[in-house]
Amino acid sequence: MAPGSPLSDLIRALPPGSVVTHADTLATYRQDRALDPDAGTPLALVRPTSTDEVQETVRWCAAHGVKLVTRGAGTSLSGGSTAVDGALMLSTERMRALHIDLPTRTATVQPGLMNSEVKVAAAQHGLWYPPDPSSFEICSIGGNVATNAGGLCCVKYGVTGDYVLGLQVVLADGRAVRLGGRQIKDSAGLSLTKLFVGSEGVLGVITEITLRLLPAQPPASTVVGTFPSVSHASRAVLAVTDRIRPALLEFMDKVTLNAVEDHLRMGLPREAEALLLAQSDAPGAAGRAEVELIQEAFTAHGAAECFSTDDPVEGEAFAAARRAAIPAVEKLGSLLLEDVGVPLPALPDLIDGVAAIAAAEDVTIAVIAHAGDGNTHPLIAFDPTDAAQRERAHRAFGQIMDLAISLGGTITGEHGVGRLKKAWLPDQVGSDVMQMTAAIKNALDPDGLLNPGVML
Amino acid sequence: MAPGSPLSDLIRALPPGSVVTHADTLATYRQDRALDPDAGTPLALVRPTSTDEVQETVRWCAAHGVKLVTRGAGTSLSGGSTAVDGALMLSTERMRALHIDLPTRTATVQPGLMNSEVKVAAAQHGLWYPPDPSSFEICSIGGNVATNAGGLCCVKYGVTGDYVLGLQVVLADGRAVRLGGRQIKDSAGLSLTKLFVGSEGVLGVITEITLRLLPAQPPASTVVGTFPSVSHASRAVLAVTDRIRPALLEFMDKVTLNAVEDHLRMGLPREAEALLLAQSDAPGAAGRAEVELIQEAFTAHGAAECFSTDDPVEGEAFAAARRAAIPAVEKLGSLLLEDVGVPLPALPDLIDGVAAIAAAEDVTIAVIAHAGDGNTHPLIAFDPTDAAQRERAHRAFGQIMDLAISLGGTITGEHGVGRLKKAWLPDQVGSDVMQMTAAIKNALDPDGLLNPGVML
Ligand SMILES: Cc1cc2nc3c(=O)[nH]c(=O)nc-3n(C[C@H](O)[C@H](O)[C@H](O)COP(=O)(O)OP(=O)(O)OC[C@H]3O[C@@H](n4cnc5c(N)ncnc54)[C@H](O)[C@@H]3O)c2cc1C
Ligand SMILES: Cc1cc2nc3c(=O)[nH]c(=O)nc-3n(C[C@H](O)[C@H](O)[C@H](O)COP(=O)(O)OP(=O)(O)OC[C@H]3O[C@@H](n4cnc5c(N)ncnc54)[C@H](O)[C@@H]3O)c2cc1C
Repeated sequence: MAPGSPLSDLIRALPPGSVVTHADTLATYRQDRALDPDAGTPLALVRPTSTDEVQETVRWCAAHGVKLVTRGAGTSLSGGSTAVDGALMLSTERMRALHIDLPTRTATVQPGLMNSEVKVAAAQHGLWYPPDPSSFEICSIGGNVATNAGGLCCVKYGVTGDYVLGLQVVLADGRAVRLGGRQIKDSAGLSLTKLFVGSEGVLGVITEITLRLLPAQPPASTVVGTFPSVSHASRAVLAVTDRIRPALLEFMDKVTLNAVEDHLRMGLPREAEALLLAQSDAPGAAGRAEVELIQEAFTAHGAAECFSTDDPVEGEAFAAARRAAIPAVEKLGSLLLEDVGVPLPALPDLIDGVAAIAAAEDVTIAVIAHAGDGNTHPLIAFDPTDAAQRERAHRAFGQIMDLAISLGGTITGEHGVGRLKKAWLPDQVGSDVMQMTAAIKNALDPDGLLNPGVML
Repeated sequence: MAPGSPLSDLIRALPPGSVVTHADTLATYRQDRALDPDAGTPLALVRPTSTDEVQETVRWCAAHGVKLVTRGAGTSLSGGSTAVDGALMLSTERMRALHIDLPTRTATVQPGLMNSEVKVAAAQHGLWYPPDPSSFEICSIGGNVATNAGGLCCVKYGVTGDYVLGLQVVLADGRAVRLGGRQIKDSAGLSLTKLFVGSEGVLGVITEITLRLLPAQPPASTVVGTFPSVSHASRAVLAVTDRIRPALLEFMDKVTLNAVEDHLRMGLPREAEALLLAQSDAPGAAGRAEVELIQEAFTAHGAAECFSTDDPVEGEAFAAARRAAIPAVEKLGSLLLEDVGVPLPALPDLIDGVAAIAAAEDVTIAVIAHAGDGNTHPLIAFDPTDAAQRERAHRAFGQIMDLAISLGGTITGEHGVGRLKKAWLPDQVGSDVMQMTAAIKNALDPDGLLNPGVML
């Protein structure tokens, strides 16, 4: 970097080693887990450790008109943390402070910690941070807040946003603000804390998060059922959710089961067309009643095998198999990852419709779902060297989002719009809402510095 | 109204009887339940029945530069629905449609229904709409959304915003937009649904609400304890919340107990310095364990009497007594109503501090609290004809908010800022957050037409 170049100001302003311009390193920050081939190359990588250093960085961007992409752990499945040519990449990986406050049962953390690290720290005090994206060991808590991440236990315990009490955010002009706090209820002023949850880095850089913690989760019982068709399984889901709120209710289809079994060799039923995995953590007799109800619902909807266990280790092995689904299916080819969600009763229509699209377009679509909240991940696998197949895969990608919208649903239940789904956002929310979104973006980031190309 | 006046255009545009200009009627819409003596007089009252009619009204306001105050049932305790001289008053009282959708377990309602009407409609289908402000029989569901209302069961079941899945909103330029929907999870675009929750009528008029419903609440057991001091009681609260999340945990001090007893004559313990009312709705053995734990916590913190019952009628009688607190205390004089909240461990400091302020300023302050979530209502009663006392009461009003802020808390946990608390909002959130708030307000309502004087 030439000494007189603007970047040298930033290098001088931050502690040594904060700014990286080495091409090999930059290359590893180009893509996120969506692996967009069109990802750009960052101007430089900045790894601040504090809110002050983030402010310094953002002020430098504002002064020089350089765009900024904020990156947590880069596990975005929608291209949210993909690099943009000429933009600075701000990684939160070094922002790793954590404080558990027992009296208020809160954790105050910097954004760069992994979700799993927050969980472990809470558990050391007998407390529980519920949200559990499948990626919990490899995604940052800041990324979780910025995408309002969901997960497996969210069907009963809610999503990331339900646990965010307070935030510190660096705005596009470099000012740092505190939103919310440690109190459980707060009606003072606009709900800005909530607005920043799920804002995907376009409104500000989140530099500190105060999370509500719960008492440790009671031990859960697990029920696993295998089904003769995806339709049977999706109807069994409704038979459960119509009556209770299980602690977990996940779906895997045959393609996924086989991909996971290839990967883990744990004896999953390769013949089953679909598998449902459910848990109840209700205490005592209530829990036993829930397990029975789930088994009845599964059996009534054609479950061939239906197995239940109170052993947490066995239960966790099934949850781990479910979490391994995306990495396992990634081996089948390049992926286009869907995150469509519908009001629960439309789940069978969505799942049947995806199968129909796979057949019509002649592409492989592995389907996994946080079935209990209507949120599905059809994973479209294709051979990137086969241009015709790639085209069919991309067509299916759009058709599935169109289908979800037509069923009154959403193009993204938890991953965010990022760069890869934004073309469908107007179809879902309409042009007036797009204008409102732009107006708010413009009010807070008038020069469009933050995460350009995401959402808008 | 002269035929050529601008208002006659609005009268013509809406169904007969929609626009009221009769002075006697207008007078009844001047104040809300905060009874602000400085309330203005509306230009006219409009009572639309549909989103279209609201759009017509807002467009007329925009065209003529007339400000608009939206009013639900007028039970605001912070002057949020107080009339403004020369502004139109839009009352949602005729917007009363309701549809329960069993498959999605949602209620889609117009804003003018009472909270209790939504509860009853849900109950007719075996479902439950949890949020239960004490005013549930006299406040509108639209007002609840606009203030993010809390209530008694919120300690376990969350506040209004936790149940809002979708909204229809008429913006300041008359456009109607739909935000969210019936799906449980949705990460598509900015969290605008959440932004409108608690927006107190300053960003738009809410014309339709889609609410998530739960299965009916299990029957609850009730524990009542009386305490030798408010400090004992507030410490007993922490002893409970440190270990479990009860379904209800309410606090009343001696002044309140006596005011309610004067009112209801139900045999409340007039001698007690404080009373705690708790409920557990955990099923079976878990519920019995919670009741025991609550009793132990009460007794360990000096409860003189500690009584428990499984009889829902008896339990409801105590809850009704708690809900009668504000109307009962209103008989003691004019009221300034606080809604301060703090992180739970600071609850004893807040409650002791309020007692100290009452003593120092020589004013009567009755204290009730949704104690389990740290949200308290010190009610400052004064003789409005005694100027010196009125002045001391107003001084205490500010001191209590200052105290809450200094304890890391909020000036309003559930009632909203309205017109009466806005002078303290900058002290809580800071000038940068006030500027962000103004920027968002300005982005959505550039001419400042909606609910002028509230929050900002
Ligand atoms: C195998 C696998 C399984 C997954 N399972 C789930 C799942 O079950 N549920 C789920 O919700 N997601 C899941 N995901 C997606 C992903 O893990 C989540 O979206 C996660 O929240 C992203 O976190 P991150 O730290 O990797 O963020 P990144 O990918 O780095 O960034 C994601 C977005 O957040 C923004 N951002 C990140 N940090 C900040 C910050 N501090 N301030 C402002 N903006 C910021 C970025 O700009 C970007 O827009 C999965 C991903 C993988 C690879
Ligand atoms: C005895 C008593 C007990 C109470 N207990 C509680 C309690 O436990 N918890 C609690 O949270 N509150 C409580 N309150 C306060 C009050 O009932 C709540 O704030 C309630 O949500 C207000 O509803 P409302 O219909 O009366 O609204 P209003 O008073 O008419 O309006 C309140 C605010 O909402 C706005 N608004 C109303 N409708 C709309 C709409 N459709 N679109 C946009 N903006 C709108 C108004 O402009 C105003 O800013 C209590 C009040 C009383 C009198």
